[in-house]
Formats: sequence, structure tokens, C-alpha cells
Amino acid sequence: MNVRVGVIGVGMIGQDHIRRITQVLTGGAVVAVNDVDAERAGQVAAGLPGTVTVTDTAQDLIAAGDVDAVLIASWGAAHEEQVLAAIAAGKPVFCEKPLAPTSAACLRIMDAEVASGRRLVQVGFMRRYDAGYQAMKAALDDGRLGPPLLMHCAHRNPSAPPYFTTDMIISDSAVHEMDVVRWLFGEEITAAAVLAPRRSRQAPDGVQDPLILLLEMAGGALVDDELFVNARYGYDVRGELVCEAGTVALADTSEVTVRAANQRSVVPGGRPPQAPPAGDRVPVDWRDRFIRAYDIELQDWLNAVAAGTSTGPSAWDGYAAAAVTDAALEALRTGQRTPVAMAGRPEFYAKALL
Amino acid sequence: MNVRVGVIGVGMIGQDHIRRITQVLTGGAVVAVNDVDAERAGQVAAGLPGTVTVTDTAQDLIAAGDVDAVLIASWGAAHEEQVLAAIAAGKPVFCEKPLAPTSAACLRIMDAEVASGRRLVQVGFMRRYDAGYQAMKAALDDGRLGPPLLMHCAHRNPSAPPYFTTDMIISDSAVHEMDVVRWLFGEEITAAAVLAPRRSRQAPDGVQDPLILLLEMAGGALVDDELFVNARYGYDVRGELVCEAGTVALADTSEVTVRAANQRSVVPGGRPPQAPPAGDRVPVDWRDRFIRAYDIELQDWLNAVAAGTSTGPSAWDGYAAAAVTDAALEALRTGQRTPVAMAGRPEFYAKALL
Amino acid sequence: MNVRVGVIGVGMIGQDHIRRITQVLTGGAVVAVNDVDAERAGQVAAGLPGTVTVTDTAQDLIAAGDVDAVLIASWGAAHEEQVLAAIAAGKPVFCEKPLAPTSAACLRIMDAEVASGRRLVQVGFMRRYDAGYQAMKAALDDGRLGPPLLMHCAHRNPSAPPYFTTDMIISDSAVHEMDVVRWLFGEEITAAAVLAPRRSRQAPDGVQDPLILLLEMAGGALVDDELFVNARYGYDVRGELVCEAGTVALADTSEVTVRAANQRSVVPGGRPPQAPPAGDRVPVDWRDRFIRAYDIELQDWLNAVAAGTSTGPSAWDGYAAAAVTDAALEALRTGQRTPVAMAGRPEFYAKALL
Amino acid sequence: MNVRVGVIGVGMIGQDHIRRITQVLTGGAVVAVNDVDAERAGQVAAGLPGTVTVTDTAQDLIAAGDVDAVLIASWGAAHEEQVLAAIAAGKPVFCEKPLAPTSAACLRIMDAEVASGRRLVQVGFMRRYDAGYQAMKAALDDGRLGPPLLMHCAHRNPSAPPYFTTDMIISDSAVHEMDVVRWLFGEEITAAAVLAPRRSRQAPDGVQDPLILLLEMAGGALVDDELFVNARYGYDVRGELVCEAGTVALADTSEVTVRAANQRSVVPGGRPPQAPPAGDRVPVDWRDRFIRAYDIELQDWLNAVAAGTSTGPSAWDGYAAAAVTDAALEALRTGQRTPVAMAGRPEFYAKALL
Repeated sequence: MNVRVGVIGVGMIGQDHIRRITQVLTGGAVVAVNDVDAERAGQVAAGLPGTVTVTDTAQDLIAAGDVDAVLIASWGAAHEEQVLAAIAAGKPVFCEKPLAPTSAACLRIMDAEVASGRRLVQVGFMRRYDAGYQAMKAALDDGRLGPPLLMHCAHRNPSAPPYFTTDMIISDSAVHEMDVVRWLFGEEITAAAVLAPRRSRQAPDGVQDPLILLLEMAGGALVDDELFVNARYGYDVRGELVCEAGTVALADTSEVTVRAANQRSVVPGGRPPQAPPAGDRVPVDWRDRFIRAYDIELQDWLNAVAAGTSTGPSAWDGYAAAAVTDAALEALRTGQRTPVAMAGRPEFYAKALL
Repeated sequence: MNVRVGVIGVGMIGQDHIRRITQVLTGGAVVAVNDVDAERAGQVAAGLPGTVTVTDTAQDLIAAGDVDAVLIASWGAAHEEQVLAAIAAGKPVFCEKPLAPTSAACLRIMDAEVASGRRLVQVGFMRRYDAGYQAMKAALDDGRLGPPLLMHCAHRNPSAPPYFTTDMIISDSAVHEMDVVRWLFGEEITAAAVLAPRRSRQAPDGVQDPLILLLEMAGGALVDDELFVNARYGYDVRGELVCEAGTVALADTSEVTVRAANQRSVVPGGRPPQAPPAGDRVPVDWRDRFIRAYDIELQDWLNAVAAGTSTGPSAWDGYAAAAVTDAALEALRTGQRTPVAMAGRPEFYAKALL
Repeated sequence: MNVRVGVIGVGMIGQDHIRRITQVLTGGAVVAVNDVDAERAGQVAAGLPGTVTVTDTAQDLIAAGDVDAVLIASWGAAHEEQVLAAIAAGKPVFCEKPLAPTSAACLRIMDAEVASGRRLVQVGFMRRYDAGYQAMKAALDDGRLGPPLLMHCAHRNPSAPPYFTTDMIISDSAVHEMDVVRWLFGEEITAAAVLAPRRSRQAPDGVQDPLILLLEMAGGALVDDELFVNARYGYDVRGELVCEAGTVALADTSEVTVRAANQRSVVPGGRPPQAPPAGDRVPVDWRDRFIRAYDIELQDWLNAVAAGTSTGPSAWDGYAAAAVTDAALEALRTGQRTPVAMAGRPEFYAKALL
Repeated sequence: MNVRVGVIGVGMIGQDHIRRITQVLTGGAVVAVNDVDAERAGQVAAGLPGTVTVTDTAQDLIAAGDVDAVLIASWGAAHEEQVLAAIAAGKPVFCEKPLAPTSAACLRIMDAEVASGRRLVQVGFMRRYDAGYQAMKAALDDGRLGPPLLMHCAHRNPSAPPYFTTDMIISDSAVHEMDVVRWLFGEEITAAAVLAPRRSRQAPDGVQDPLILLLEMAGGALVDDELFVNARYGYDVRGELVCEAGTVALADTSEVTVRAANQRSVVPGGRPPQAPPAGDRVPVDWRDRFIRAYDIELQDWLNAVAAGTSTGPSAWDGYAAAAVTDAALEALRTGQRTPVAMAGRPEFYAKALL
């Protein structure tokens, strides 16, 4: 009765989804894995309960008779071919963001899905499943705050990996805000601009960090998004919607409040202040912050696959994020406000945004 | 490979656990149900996926060959017989609190379990699995706050059901603090006293609400526990441990902060202040507050059953809570500080408390 | 036009009031000082603007023609004689708590004031002037929270001076809660009990710290007050009124929130966490916490003196606090709940409490 | 011994300063008033203690022999002439912002002050005296947060008066952030840009509200400032400095926390949620928020005048704010990023900024 899932790409995020399906969620089982690193694929398969096939290619996995649905966690450059193959095979596919590295590729995926006549693709924008953003949307949709005029966002990581370029701050980090503001406002983004403040000396040479990304919504609202991937002090995602009659903001959450040494503090896992060196601290990153959102996202996908329906961010959402990314990268290069160029939304995706 | 669970008692909490095992957790399946109301049992079984047997008696369910483990959510008076039967059958059993309505009955269960030579019983004290209490315990065990001297608790429900008596404020509400303070301090409770403040006019006739319960720990620390089951404004569980060098308190959590109408508020589900009448509000109760703790508790149980081990609150913990309840009820009747009378802890349960 | 104030006692608190009148408040001037330590009195006088007389005795100061009003900040044992002298001279007198060390002495002061036919005495219970307690009283008086049933208080000092005995925890620390709960509830305290939890090893030998003081209000409400004068982590005064329809609590206040080193903290003066050793930290004590309350209290007194009226805590309030202190000290000695013995309230003080 | 102050302009802010000097602060007395509305001036004088002269002209007041220092709270257009007259008379002058309506006028004031050889002018930028900004500056100057890279500000009023134009959002509201960021960073502002988001329907016809003002600091840091003068829900000034190793933000302060009706709220003056219509609510505006800052600001001025020294925001600071205002108004008109044109800072004002 379980949805039999094949997983392509067993790096960090792929393994995390495998753990989730196997140990946390209900209604799914991993039955096949594939990775460009066949040895790693074999090790991961060996660690799983039941019989798990290791396929030679992603295409073999997608074609396998016992694979009901495909989860793609490979690198972005491979997504287009793999998603198209899943559509061709008529199998539901969950694809980690980005849907594809260019908006042209996303368009090709949309065309194929429309031609197939059935929604098969879900893109991994997990913030929509976060309790904070969900409550923010509920407060907005309630109506009493009035229409939104502004949104202030901040997206801070303690540090970025060595290969992380300035472009990736837009394409890999800001893409989350691009999606979540489209979802909150129920509108497309029409233009982008990028500002470069004083550079942190904590950023690697050649990386402009932090950035301020400005996004214009179709209805005129303005979003500012601080992107700071070497913020050092912790992982911190924040947002405040400013509406005509009030505001709603993501709250700072913590389980306990510690009072010690003339401070009142909020500490991960209840640690008192003046803790030992950071080395023995619990890591604080996107997995900590959004672990529940990932769980809910993937459980919803398994439920939808089992029910033969489709929910969640669609190929259109993946395409829209790619188009906004294109505009923002252009804005970063030129220093100019840049309109977002997007194809018209097919009727097929009419309900996709909301 | 799933743990096949038989559920005795399919009232509100029983159905909630069935939903949890079926839709949320992994590694378990409900294969049999029993209830004193056979029709209700049949309806619940009919709503579940796969084949679910409805047994005529609890004993039949416990004895059934395809039942690996038993979950007891019947009323308290039936617990002793059902738990003893599960022990006799050599099957792991999760029993909602109270383990049994008297400490004598709890002792009989302990004797049977010790005689069986194997830990089979877990009692449903879910607060130990709550992220707040877990972080509090981590802060305490860290050591830098020093030993605990005091704990202040509050346990507030918006309202109690009509049949809820003053005694039940002790036996059904305060029992959660009795267990969680034993677990936090790693010590037994040695005496109890009960104070009766001014009675709320919101309490039904004849019910003394609120109460203050005072508990003395073996090491001399003192716990005060406000119990207020008709507190009206919401469900609110609070706690602060006061230690030699600092304090740690359960934090107030919320997903968003709403600013509107000259207020800055924290509202369930992000609702702005001055919401419509309470009728259309999201209910705020113990299920909202502790839903994750219940999930983690039961997943841990399923995992332990699958691994052939035992974790979590033991029969000894169930017995200790019953003994403290006895003392507190005596203190309520007499107005006097009352020592807790407890048997010695069998070696079998040596690690049970911590 | 200034109220000409004579100050008796120029220790820490006396000097602080002198600074306040001279540098912060308007409408008053210190024109005379007296202290058992004549040299210290002379030094203080020399540091003040204008001509400030140093009198040989407190009586001389009270009698001086250019002294309009008297501020008593001498040690408690001297208060009775000095307050009586001020009443005899027909001069308004502000007396730091305690009004007098015994309730019998307070009664003699009341008798003298009643005989004088005019309210001349104000007692230095400054918490009534604190913005937090003021807002708490406003929330209570608003009526929508319903009548109060319980109050939870905590009174924590980082450390106590070496001479501070267990009795002084009641007579010097708890006396503030005794007064403020009378004011909040608008009712007298009718009984007291004291509980002795596990003793902090940070307390000096022979001192039982912390204590829990229980107070019964005339209307049946119950107050619990944690007194912990060697709490180490800081000065912290807290309170929560629990009413039939909701609660109101003193909030934790801070000017800024600092995020650094994986913590989100609230620090005096905006210091980041992991600050240098406490030695160079800003002291955090009752002067920090209540500095504004002291300012408002004394400005109100100066205004009332100038207007020929009387406001603020009266001799009756000083007497009531002394009577409750007597009962609490008896309760500490005997371990028993102890009724408060009080004389009837003279009509003269009819409005004193509210 | 009091500083004898003459006040020019007795509208709302002028009267508030008069109340402050007369009833709250020490060391000052109002001895003369002047207003274009002579009747109003007479009424204000009549309500004050002592003899208060009403002068026919501002010049007469400045020249009066018994006026030691001048406080200017007239309308902006009159400031230049009045400040120049005070400088000519060699009298210390406190001038409410703006120092003068154009940067050219401010330059003339600076020239006159430099020529006089003595710092006589203080400009009324009261935020520097606010406990929140003070603690923010202390956290920054501490050094452990590292250099500042960004600052996010919001400046929200519930509503603006009918005559309030879009330009005034820059010149009257944003001017406070212009000054306070110069003070916090210890740097000049070098460029400004203005963005116009979706307009609130709560704003009067023709007024673009909210605005986003972007300011570039000399060291490269970037400041974004949300200006929303019809924000409806309350008066709210916020700020967060983002530094290389952490952030420091103005905290939300409140005296009490009210729990009622399924909400946990922070309410001015302790009012429970679901209060009666806003009409009977305590007004919440800049006077509430910054009342202490105004007190401290003016007390510092009185102290400096008495001591013959000068502290606080200088004519240079007034000039800098005017120059930035010019650039921001130009940016508003053109939609373009606009450099700030400023004269070099005279050695005379070398320490003025910090």
C-alpha cells in the first residue's frame, strides 16, 4: 500500500529525504536509488530496510516497474532531463529546487507536463509548509489587516560553503523568498533590483555579501530581502508583512528562556549563556529551522501521490522562480532595476499559485 | 515489518493515537481494536486502511496472534486487568495514564512485570517528550545553573468537562506535573500539601478551582503547582526551575506576532486581535500544545517495540505518580501536609527514573 | 518657591534621595542634613549647591525654621522618635520603610497623626509608583479580567550583604510585596505562612535562602512569594495576577535585543553575550530596576507638600506592613500558618488603602 | 541659580517643553515667552508660576536681560533669523528640528556660530537620548559585533495631520533617522534614493504613503527606512543594525503582558485585549514613545548651559540633516539615486558627530 519511491541523488538532501520517508513519515518506502557516485548509492541502499535496487542510470530508475514515484535530489543541471523522463513515464515527480537551471528549461518541462494532460511535478519549495509562513498567510487572508503594501525579509546563514558565489546568493538563497512571497501575495513578481552594501570581511574574496534584493509585486507592493550568507551568529529567517491596518511577522521561537549571568537568553536546546566554545554547540542551520516544514511537505506529496492528485508548488512555480532569478542576476550584473520576463500562464496551471 | 498494534478503547484519545499510527508515524499499523461500545469500535475499524479486526473483548485482542503490541486507552478502572493480561501474554503494552487507579493496583502490575523478567510496560506521560521540557532538562543537566531549589508550575485549562471534580484536578491534571518533576529532578516526591485559594465563579458548583499543590522533593527542593481548570483565557502550561545560579523556564511560543489596533499580540494561527466571537476560533487545548510530544512519544514506543527494547516512563513511574496522587488527595481532604508512602524501588527499575 | 527639605540619614539611600531632589526633580531643595555620623553629614552638605545646614541632632533639623518637610532615611530603630517629632512640629514627613520596627510603634505614630488632625506621613513603598505595577493595577481595575484569585511573585537579588539574616528576608525584602499586594487587591492580608525549600549553598551559613512566603488576602485570594536574596544571576522582581478571565504579569523589559554567537539575548545596556567577566558589568540592582519609581514617588511627595495635601502610602500602610511582618516572622519561627493581628482601621485612614 | 529660559513658539511642542522645564526637570525656569499668536502666549504665561514676560517679538525675548538661554519651538521658516539673533546675543539656543528649512540657511547659521567662536546651538534630535538607541550604540561601540553593514529602520505613525504632504514624510519624519544613523555609525550619509511601494488607501489623496528611503553611509553601509505615516495600528519606531558578527535591534517594550481571550498581548497601560473602541484608548504617539528622551535631552541642555559648555547635536548636525533631506527630496522627485552635496566640516565641529 506504500508509495514506492525511487530517489535520484543521494547526497545530503537526498539522504535526508530517504531518512524522512523511512523513519518519520508514513505511507512511503524507498525501493530504488541512483547516484552519479554508484558506490555511494550502494552504501545508502545497503543501510535501508527491505530490498532497495541500485540502478545504473537515472533513466533506469524512472522506468523501473516497482517505482511508483520519483524524488529528484540530484544537482540542478540534471533536473530537466530527469523530470522530463518522469513525465514521459507518467510518474509523479518531486524535484528539489531549482526545477531547472534556466527558465527556458522550465518552460520545456511545463510544455511536456501540459502535453501529458496531468499534473505530475512538485517543486521543493518547503517554506510554504512552515508553521510560521502558514500563520502569516492565515493572518493576511483573514482580511482584517488589509492589503499588504510591503514585506521585509532577511535570510541569514552563519556561513556559506567555499564554492558559494555571489550569483548563488540570488539563485540558491533568495529563490526561497521569491517563491514564498509569490505564494503569500498570490501575485507574480514583476521586477527586481539588487543593492550591494558594505561587504563583510567574513565573506570569501570576491563574494559580495550581504546583498539587498528588491522585488516588485504585480499589485505594486514592494519586498526587500536582506541576503547575508556569512552572518556568523546563526541561521535566521525573518519576515514581516506590512499591511494597511497592521503587520504580521515571523516570531522568534524558542523552547525555553534561561536567566543566568545577568542575561535573559534564548539558546538552542536550552544551553545557558557563556557556553563552551562553539565547537560543541548544536549546529543551527536550515535543517533545524525547517525540519518540520520538510516533513509536512513530503508527507503531503506522498499523500497526494497515493490519492492520485497533485498539490504543492507546481512547474509553473518553478518556472516563475527561474524567471525572477534571471531578472535578479541581470540586475546584479547591471546595477539596474530589471523587469521580469515571463510567458503567459497556461490555463493548466490556473490554480497553481494560490 | 510494521509493528502490529491492537488498540483497546477508541474514545477521543484512542482514536487520536490510531490516527497517529496510521497517518503520521512510521513502522506501525493498527490491526485490531476493542471498545466497550462495540458499535463505535466497528465504525473506527471500518474507517481504517487494511483489515482491522474488532474483538469481542480486550482479552481477545491481547491474545490475538497478529497483535504484536497493545495500546490501552480505555478508562482507568480497566487498566489493571488489561495491562496484567498483556504482561501475561508477553506483549509490550503502552498504557495511557493513569497506569491504574490505585497505587496498590500499580504495585500488582510492577510485581507481574518483575516476575516476567522483562520491561513490557510504558505509561503515557507525554510531557517528557515535549521540546520545552526536554530543553529545560538539558539546561539543568548542563550543570552551569547549579542544583535546582524550586520549581514554579502552572497548569491552566480554559474549561473542564461537567463531570470534572475537585479530586480529578489532582488525579487527572496535576498527575502530569507529578511525573515531569520526578523526571526533571531525578528524585522522588516525598510529601504533598494542597491550598485552596478564592474559588473562581467560573467553576461549577462544588468544585474548588483553582488549587495550589505543593510538592516536596527528596533532595529538599519545593515545587508549587497552580492548577486552574476553568481559567477561561486558554490552555497554558508553564514552568520555571529556579537553580542556585539561574533559572530556566518554558518559553511562550508562537509562530507569528501580529501588530494591530494598538496591540502587539500572539495569536493561535496568526489571527489578528479583535477576532470574531470565540465560536469560530481554533480550539486551543492540550492536543494543540502537546501534539508533537504525543507523536514523538508513540514513535519512540513503536521503535522500541520493533527493537525489542523498552524506554520511556515505566510501571515504576506509574506507581510513583499514583502514590503521590494518594498523598495529594489526602492532603486535599485534611488540609495537612501529607508524606508520600511508597514501597522501595525494585532493582529491576533502577534506571527507570532518569 | 521650592519645598525646603531636611534629610535625616545620609547613607546610601539618603544620598540617593538628595541627588534626586537636587539634580532630577523639580520643586524641592535640600536645606539641612543630619546623620549620626556628623563627618559624613558635613561632607554631603559640602557637596551640595546653596547653603545646607548640618544640624547636631535630628530634633534640631525637624525644628529648624527653614525646613518645610522632613525626609527620614535613618536606620529603622530611630524612625519612631523622628516621625513623632515631625508630626509634633506639624511638618510633612517622608519616611523610608519600615515606618517603625514594631507594629506597636506604628500604632503610636498613627495615634499621633490622627490626634494632629492632618495626614503628614508618607511611607517609602516605591513599587506603587512603578510603571509595571501601575499597568498591572490598571488592567485589574479595568474589570475585564475579573476578580483576582491568585498572585505569583518572585523577589530575587543577586546577593545580600553579610549582615542579612533570614528574618530580614521577611522584614526587609518581602515587605515590598506585602505592601504592593495590599494596594493591588485593595484588601488587607489576613494570614501568612513560610516554607523553607532546599537551601542554596550560595547563602551564608545559617541563612535559609530561598523562602516561599504565602499570604492570604481578606477576600480569599492567595499570594505566593518566592524570596531569594542570593539568586546570583541578577535582580529580578516578577509578578503575575491570576484572575477569573485572564492574567496580567510584569513584563521583562529591555531596550535592545542582541543576536550573536547563536544566542538571542537581552543584556543590560546592550552588551553582547559572552561579555568580559562580571566585574566590569553594570551593576544590576534595585536602584536600576526602580529608579524611575523612586523619582515619581518623591516628585509626587514634593508636589503634595507644596499643595498642602497628602498622597501615597500612609501610616496605616506602614502599620499594616508591620503587622503582616510580625505574622510572617512568627510563621517562620513556628512553621505554622499565622493569622495577622491588626487593630481596626481608623476612619481617618479610610481612603488610605486604595 | 536656575537657568532662565525664554521660549519662542508656544504651540504643542513649545508648551510641552515649558511643562518639562517647569514640572519635571531641575535647574531651569521659564521667564519669558513669545509667539506669533500673542493671545496664546499670554495664556501660557498666565498659567506658569512666577513672573513670566510676554515679549512682543522673538527679538525682544532674545535680547531680554533676564533671559539666559533661548528655546526655539516656532515654525521652521522662522528658525534661521531667531537662531542667528541668539548667536549674535551670545546666548545658548536650543532649536527644535529642523535647524532651518534649507541647507543654505543652515550654512549661514554655522558660519555665524563659528565666527562667534563658541558653540551655542543645540538641535532637537531627541532620539540620541532614547534608552533604546543608547543601548544600541553601546552594543555597537563594544566592538564584539564587528562593523555595521546594514541598518533596517521603520518609522510608523498611526495617522498624519491633513496638511502632511509626501515631501513632509521625508523632511519631518525621515529626518529623525537621518540624524540617528549618522550618530550611530559616526559617519556622514553620502547618497539617498526613495522607492514608492503600493499606496495605502488610508493615506489622503495625493499622498504617497508608505515610502522606502535608502541611505548610503560614507563607509559603504546601507540603511533602509520604511516611512509609513498612516500605519493605523499605532506608533512604532524600529531599528536593527546588522553587523559582521551579529545584530542589535530596538526591543519591543511594555510594562505588562496580558493573557486573555486566547491571546497573549502587550497593551499600552495594561489594557486587556478586546478593549472598547479606540476613542477611549490612551493615545499612542511620539510623545509616549520618546517622553523620557525629551526629558533627558532638555535636562542635558540645561546642565550644559549652567556649566557654560555645549553638548548634543550641533549646527553641523542640523546642516547635515538638511543636506540629506535635500538629496532625498530630489530623489523622490526624480526617482533616481541622488548624492548628498555637503560642504566640508569645519574644524570647529570636529567632535560634533560622535
